[in-house]
Amino acid sequence: MKNVGEKAITERIAVAQAVLDAPAAVIARLRARTLDKGDALEMARAAAFLAAKRTPDLLPLCHPLLLEKIDVRYEFTETSVTVQVEVGTQARTGVEMEALTAASIAALTLYDMLKPHAGTDLRIHDVLLLKKTGGKSHFVRA
Amino acid sequence: MKNVGEKAITERIAVAQAVLDAPAAVIARLRARTLDKGDALEMARAAAFLAAKRTPDLLPLCHPLLLEKIDVRYEFTETSVTVQVEVGTQARTGVEMEALTAASIAALTLYDMLKPHAGTDLRIHDVLLLKKTGGKSHFVRA
Amino acid sequence: MKNVGEKAITERIAVAQAVLDAPAAVIARLRARTLDKGDALEMARAAAFLAAKRTPDLLPLCHPLLLEKIDVRYEFTETSVTVQVEVGTQARTGVEMEALTAASIAALTLYDMLKPHAGTDLRIHDVLLLKKTGGKSHFVRA
Amino acid sequence: MKNVGEKAITERIAVAQAVLDAPAAVIARLRARTLDKGDALEMARAAAFLAAKRTPDLLPLCHPLLLEKIDVRYEFTETSVTVQVEVGTQARTGVEMEALTAASIAALTLYDMLKPHAGTDLRIHDVLLLKKTGGKSHFVRA
Amino acid sequence: MKNVGEKAITERIAVAQAVLDAPAAVIARLRARTLDKGDALEMARAAAFLAAKRTPDLLPLCHPLLLEKIDVRYEFTETSVTVQVEVGTQARTGVEMEALTAASIAALTLYDMLKPHAGTDLRIHDVLLLKKTGGKSHFVRA
Amino acid sequence: MKNVGEKAITERIAVAQAVLDAPAAVIARLRARTLDKGDALEMARAAAFLAAKRTPDLLPLCHPLLLEKIDVRYEFTETSVTVQVEVGTQARTGVEMEALTAASIAALTLYDMLKPHAGTDLRIHDVLLLKKTGGKSHFVRA
Repeated sequence: MKNVGEKAITERIAVAQAVLDAPAAVIARLRARTLDKGDALEMARAAAFLAAKRTPDLLPLCHPLLLEKIDVRYEFTETSVTVQVEVGTQARTGVEMEALTAASIAALTLYDMLKPHAGTDLRIHDVLLLKKTGGKSHFVRA
Repeated sequence: MKNVGEKAITERIAVAQAVLDAPAAVIARLRARTLDKGDALEMARAAAFLAAKRTPDLLPLCHPLLLEKIDVRYEFTETSVTVQVEVGTQARTGVEMEALTAASIAALTLYDMLKPHAGTDLRIHDVLLLKKTGGKSHFVRA
Repeated sequence: MKNVGEKAITERIAVAQAVLDAPAAVIARLRARTLDKGDALEMARAAAFLAAKRTPDLLPLCHPLLLEKIDVRYEFTETSVTVQVEVGTQARTGVEMEALTAASIAALTLYDMLKPHAGTDLRIHDVLLLKKTGGKSHFVRA
Repeated sequence: MKNVGEKAITERIAVAQAVLDAPAAVIARLRARTLDKGDALEMARAAAFLAAKRTPDLLPLCHPLLLEKIDVRYEFTETSVTVQVEVGTQARTGVEMEALTAASIAALTLYDMLKPHAGTDLRIHDVLLLKKTGGKSHFVRA
Repeated sequence: MKNVGEKAITERIAVAQAVLDAPAAVIARLRARTLDKGDALEMARAAAFLAAKRTPDLLPLCHPLLLEKIDVRYEFTETSVTVQVEVGTQARTGVEMEALTAASIAALTLYDMLKPHAGTDLRIHDVLLLKKTGGKSHFVRA
Repeated sequence: MKNVGEKAITERIAVAQAVLDAPAAVIARLRARTLDKGDALEMARAAAFLAAKRTPDLLPLCHPLLLEKIDVRYEFTETSVTVQVEVGTQARTGVEMEALTAASIAALTLYDMLKPHAGTDLRIHDVLLLKKTGGKSHFVRA
C-alpha cells in the first residue's frame, strides 16, 4: 500500500455511478417500491453507505480514510436504474474507490432484490467515475 | 430476508463475470505483472475469495452460506480483462450474488491498481451471470 | 464457546424486540418518512438484517449459524416505535441472540437518525425476548 | 451520510449506559465471576471495545472516527448490572452512537452469558446518553 | 478456494498453540491480573473466540465453517504464557487454521497489553498444531 | 482503551516479522510459485494489507489509525520464509501491533497454502518487532 504520508491534506470529492438494466415492468415496481422483498432503493442506499466505509476492508491496496459525506442518488430510464454515489472527505488521497465500491454494492443489492422478478435478465454496466476533485487532478467526465 | 428453510439442500453452482476496460498499454503491464503497485491479478484473486465469503455481510438480503468452492479466472482482450468467478456449495439457496459480488470486487481491485497508469480511462461493465445450476432453475447464458 | 455438537438440528425461531421512545412530533416524522436524514425505518431494517447475520462477530460466545429467515416489523405508539425481529433457522442452537442483536442495532439506527430532531430526548428500553421455539424450550412471553 | 466537513475538530466525549435486569442469584454469580460460560464482565468489556470501534460498520449513517479512548465501567444493584461506556476523541462530530452501541453490545454479551442461568428472565433497558461534551452542545443527564 | 464439496462431513477437532515470551515480572502481573490495561487473559480469550470465527475472513483460501466449540486455555512458565485453543465442528474440512488463527490473535492481544510493561522484550513463537482429528488424518504432536 | 488524546501526532513507523518453517521442497515450490493452491506469496501479501488495516477490529485495546503505508517483503532460507511488514502513519500512537498482526496473518496464509504439501511439518516463530520510530521511543533490534 503506497505511502501517501507526504501528500497534502485537501478536500477530496468523488462521484461514481453504476447502472443496472432490468425489464421495464421490474423497474416500474422498483420505483413504486412494491417489490416482494421490500423497498430496494432504501436497502441499496444503506448498503452503499456501509460499503463506502468498508472499502479499505475489501480492496487490499486502498487507504483507510475518515469519510465525511456520502450521498446516494438514483436516476431511472424505462429499463434501467443508475446509482450515483458522491463521497467527500479531507485527506491525503482521493475517495474514487469508495464511490465506485459503494455504487457497485448498491447495484448488487438492487440486483439481489430484483432477481425474483427479473430472473437472469439483469446486467450491471458503466461502473465508472463521473467526477473527482482535490489533490493534483480535477476531472469531470464529458 | 426471505425464508429459505423449506427449500431442499442441493448442489448449487454459479458463474459470473465482470469486465474492466483499460488502455492496451496498461492491460499489457497487468498481464506482464509489472504494475507499480504489484501483481494485480493475484491481489484481485485474493479480494475475490474474501468478497465471495463476505457477500451476506454486504448485501442486506443475502443468506449466509457455507461456500465450498471459489474459482477465479481471467480472460484478456487487448483492451480489457474479464474476471470470471465460479462459486459452488450445497445449500437451500443459490450462490449467484456471491459470484457477482466476488467478480465486482475483483474488478474494483484491478481498477484500483491500474489507476496510477490509466487515470480515469477505466470502466467496469457486463457484470452478469453466466451460468447457474441447482435449485429449480438451470441457466446458461447464450 | 460451549460445545453444541451433540445437540440435535431442529427448527429454531426467536422473536425479540427493542423499544425506542421519542417525542411525538419526531415519531410522526419517522412514520411519515420525512426525517432530514432519510427513511429511517428502511435504513434500520437494513441494519437489522446485517446485524442479525453478524451477531457471532459481535458477541464472543455466540455460535455461527446459517440464518434462513429474518423479518423486521415496526409498531408505533404516539411516543415510541417498537422494532420486532423474527429470526429462523435449522440449527443445533437457538437464534435468540441474533434476534436481540438485530432489534438493538435497528433501534440504535433509528436513534441515530432521530437524534437531529430529538436531541437527547431518546431512550431504548424493553429489549427482550418475546418468543422462542425449537430445542428443549418453548417460550412465549405473557 | 450528512456532510460534517465544515464542522470544527474539537474534543468530544460521550458517556452512555445500558442496564440489564437479571435474577439476584444470577447477578451474584456474575459479580463473583463464577458463571458456567466464564468471566462475563471481562468478555463484555472486550465486546464493548470492539463494538465502539465498529459502530460506523453497524449504523449506516454513522461517520467513521478515530476513537482515542474507550472506558467501560460496571455498577450493580441486587437485580441489575449497568454498563457505562465513555468514549473520547477529537473529531468533527460526536461519539454518542459509539458509546450507545458499545453499551448495548456489552449488555447483549452479558445477556448471552447469563442466559444458561437466567433463562428468559432477562431484560435490557435504559439504554441512553448520560453525558456529552464537545461540539455545539453540552449535556449532562439530570 | 479448493472444492471440498465431495468430502464427507465428519467431526473435526484441532488444537493449536502460540507461545509469548515476556520478562518474569510481567508474566507475574499477567497471572495476578494486575496489568495497567486490565485483565489480559480474559481480553485475549474474547479475541480468540472472535478470531476463530473470523478466520475465513482473514485467510483468503480458508473455507467458512460453523464452529461448534472453541476452548481457550493458558499455561505458564516463569517467562512465558502459552495459549492453547481447541476448535471443534462437524464439517467437510478441518479447523486447523481456525485454531492457529485464534491462538495467534490471542497471543497478539496479550502482547498488546503487556507492551506498556515489557517494551520490546516480547516474542511470539511455536505457533503450531498440537492435535488434529477427523477427516483422513489423525495427528498428535509428539 | 487507554486515552491517547494528549499524545502528539508524529510520524510513526514499525517493522515486524514472522517466520514460517517448512520442508525445503515446499519452500522451493513456494518460491517457484507452483503450489497447488496458487501463488501463496501474493495471496499472503493481500492478507497482510487487509489484516494491518483490520488490527483494531481484532485486538480489543488497539486504537484505530489511518495507515498511510504498508509494505510486505519476503526473505528465504532453504527451510523458511520470513514475512517482514513495515507500516507507517502520522498518529498519536504507534503501529507496532498493526505490523505484528499483518506479519502473523501473512504467515498463517502461507501456512494454509503450504499445508497440502507440508502436512503438519510447519511452525511459525520469531514473531517480533524489528524497528519502531516516532513517539517517545526509537528502537532497532540488534
